[in-house]
Amino acid sequence: MTEPQKTLAFVVYPGLTSLDLVGPLQVLSALDAAGPEFRTVVVGETLEPVTTDSPLRIAPSHTFDAVTDPYAIIVPGGGVPTLQALADRTLIGYLARAAETAELAASVCTGSLLLGQAGLLNGREATTHWLFRDLLPAFGATPVAKRWVEDGPVITAAGVSAGIDLALHLVERFAGTEAARRVQFGIEYDPEPPLGPLDWSDVPEDLGSLRELVLREGLAGRPELRAKLLARA
Amino acid sequence: MTEPQKTLAFVVYPGLTSLDLVGPLQVLSALDAAGPEFRTVVVGETLEPVTTDSPLRIAPSHTFDAVTDPYAIIVPGGGVPTLQALADRTLIGYLARAAETAELAASVCTGSLLLGQAGLLNGREATTHWLFRDLLPAFGATPVAKRWVEDGPVITAAGVSAGIDLALHLVERFAGTEAARRVQFGIEYDPEPPLGPLDWSDVPEDLGSLRELVLREGLAGRPELRAKLLARA
Repeated sequence: MTEPQKTLAFVVYPGLTSLDLVGPLQVLSALDAAGPEFRTVVVGETLEPVTTDSPLRIAPSHTFDAVTDPYAIIVPGGGVPTLQALADRTLIGYLARAAETAELAASVCTGSLLLGQAGLLNGREATTHWLFRDLLPAFGATPVAKRWVEDGPVITAAGVSAGIDLALHLVERFAGTEAARRVQFGIEYDPEPPLGPLDWSDVPEDLGSLRELVLREGLAGRPELRAKLLARA
Repeated sequence: MTEPQKTLAFVVYPGLTSLDLVGPLQVLSALDAAGPEFRTVVVGETLEPVTTDSPLRIAPSHTFDAVTDPYAIIVPGGGVPTLQALADRTLIGYLARAAETAELAASVCTGSLLLGQAGLLNGREATTHWLFRDLLPAFGATPVAKRWVEDGPVITAAGVSAGIDLALHLVERFAGTEAARRVQFGIEYDPEPPLGPLDWSDVPEDLGSLRELVLREGLAGRPELRAKLLARA
């Protein structure tokens, strides 16, 4: 008897932040090459390429309907389009249904807000992009300022690049420390940010207005959603 | 009078490593949002989506023919398909022609071998993915074990994830330190590799056989290219 293959489903929607998706996809797709136990897929409502926040357009490998029983779902975040996607019933419905039987629901950046909208963060600790962390209580979650937060079957990462760290952690969890080490050497992940680590005591001032812009545009025409999100922020 | 717009052209081909492309694309496309001075595009031989080494398929935004005078070219690397691409005359021809007038030719990972094949590394210091660094002398280059290496108009990065560091450096070069700091906060780039930095005194043994496999499959049927690459390795 062979074990059924475990499907890691990356969930895409128009306007997502491309690195939120591709960082962890690069890392976790290394499990495909290691043997038949895992396969990674990119699922969307249709197979049509979706736009992202960069000039990249991404073609899903499968539709939501074709991947109904994934082992894990991983959902990327973004700016305005991700807030708009909170009202996308097809997307949120897919996340909620897939999570019922999945072993793991994961998010990168503001993807955690989508998990929250699907009802998956209630009573859990979670994180998201630092600019939007205070929105998490709207979904019954307790915000935590960590690179990633694991709470039972739900694991959420901080902003954008944190998806790489989360994915290496998942490789270790799924396939062991040696496998994670091999992947880390494979992607030569030995970061040297040219300006050093982030200095949280000196956050660029104009990012606050970026936050306001994203909230205003992303929630335009959705006063109930806006009230829900900002009630406790 | 307005200055002509500066085009940053990410060059794609079938089988590339997706994070080599998307890491720097995410970072540099932030320059688009900052004003009209820069635009980032994804150029391919045709507009058809190209495969990558992950389940991701990537649709170019422009063809090579439509972007003949970029300000910069940035070429990602990969495994077997990148070595095969050394014999792709259309791709190599585009890199060589575009570099004639471009201010900058950049690469991530084994993308530097493609720059080398286009004649752009002769007499220069350069780097590439650590497993393939000894191939650089075949193109007249001096290998350097650094995260990125800048030599005149050519800048090459180490493996895969190094493209993010290189791109932040380029944002600083193009738009200044404050702009680079904003982008770094935007992508929350404050890396925490779960297993810590790479320990170069303890490289996983089986990666040597991966190197041999990539060279064997990538150069199959190309004995002259194989001889050229390995003559000085």
